[in-house]
Amino acid sequence: MTRLSQRLAELGHTLPSPTVPVANFLSTTRLGDLLVVSGHIGHVGAASAGPVGQALSADEARAEAELAALALLAAIDAAVEGDIDRVQQVMRLGVFIAASPAFDQHSRVADGASNLVVAALGERGRHARTAVGVASLPAGAAVEVDALVRLRPDAKAASHD
Amino acid sequence: MTRLSQRLAELGHTLPSPTVPVANFLSTTRLGDLLVVSGHIGHVGAASAGPVGQALSADEARAEAELAALALLAAIDAAVEGDIDRVQQVMRLGVFIAASPAFDQHSRVADGASNLVVAALGERGRHARTAVGVASLPAGAAVEVDALVRLRPDAKAASHD
Amino acid sequence: MTRLSQRLAELGHTLPSPTVPVANFLSTTRLGDLLVVSGHIGHVGAASAGPVGQALSADEARAEAELAALALLAAIDAAVEGDIDRVQQVMRLGVFIAASPAFDQHSRVADGASNLVVAALGERGRHARTAVGVASLPAGAAVEVDALVRLRPDAKAASHD
Repeated sequence: MTRLSQRLAELGHTLPSPTVPVANFLSTTRLGDLLVVSGHIGHVGAASAGPVGQALSADEARAEAELAALALLAAIDAAVEGDIDRVQQVMRLGVFIAASPAFDQHSRVADGASNLVVAALGERGRHARTAVGVASLPAGAAVEVDALVRLRPDAKAASHD
Repeated sequence: MTRLSQRLAELGHTLPSPTVPVANFLSTTRLGDLLVVSGHIGHVGAASAGPVGQALSADEARAEAELAALALLAAIDAAVEGDIDRVQQVMRLGVFIAASPAFDQHSRVADGASNLVVAALGERGRHARTAVGVASLPAGAAVEVDALVRLRPDAKAASHD
Repeated sequence: MTRLSQRLAELGHTLPSPTVPVANFLSTTRLGDLLVVSGHIGHVGAASAGPVGQALSADEARAEAELAALALLAAIDAAVEGDIDRVQQVMRLGVFIAASPAFDQHSRVADGASNLVVAALGERGRHARTAVGVASLPAGAAVEVDALVRLRPDAKAASHD
């Protein structure tokens, strides 16, 4: 059990296993201290009956945003091999919501992801954010979240440069 | 009055006060010389009667893009504490337009933001850009703009590292 | 003929000339070893009869994603002045698909771009990715792709710093 999964358990959440992309991309890429995290989604098919603002309420979508953030955190935890202290700061979250044209509570939905990341990582989890409503998402998801993360300089890696 | 607000006044614009996010995120994050700027919007409710291409014309949306860029510049000015010369280059603007499926003038709308940033910052304001039409935006906005900015190395900060 | 265009010719593709933006932005910006690549599109008007999932099939959209990736690679090749070995890694692709609300095969479409980038650049082309379905794209395009690329440190440039 990693420190991040322990912290999430204290918060009442279960850190999932990191997902393996079903398509031709990587969950994360890293060069130096910059970690780029791919878009991670909540439940498959969550918006298949219709978009947020029609078939799903803002609160249901907020739960989906939280789920997407859990998947994102699992990817980050895997990238730092369970040593979550190597995360210096979550610089940015991108939050994409499969929303109706009339929907206007994107901030409330996106806070489902932001609150979890801040609860899990504290000050290091505080981030800039862009939240938008999109037409549809992969696999019929309701919410997709990606991130840009700054890692602490890796002394071990540096010594081999 | 900061140098940026003076420059914008010469251009006939008023730099607004930096907005305080109403949700759980920061206007900007910074690590080293990389400044990540959150999505900033034009008027609340600008697209509440319908999307760009239906309820709003391309020119009305272009004015919204300019307004969003003013809010974005206010966030940058606050991040550099009014010392706008610390901006080395605006690397990228992301422009999200609440647009109808048939709309195809995204470039014209996005230039409302790009032209303002270039007019305000000159060569240092020239940027890469991604403009897309989305289903809806936070608070019923018509346009949202975010950015990635490179700052000059900060001698003062470095000396305390 | 650059090495990248030769490699693409072997794969049966023609590297186009780099596009000149029709609006007020740059195809790429660069600072240090970070190259930011603007959104590049497939055919103008590809989605003018309707979005992917309605007027266009997933396979037709996949071909548009490939075309957008070719335009993106042309921009990268121009930025490194034909010396494609200066690309250290494609850190991230952003794939925007003009898709219907019910569409759910974004991963299949986006692989049209990802497969081409990996085929062209090998391991250095493997990337993180965010794919979403949007309401509409500039010039009626069906797919738009942007990127974040890490370049190798440029010894020549460094020696003049």
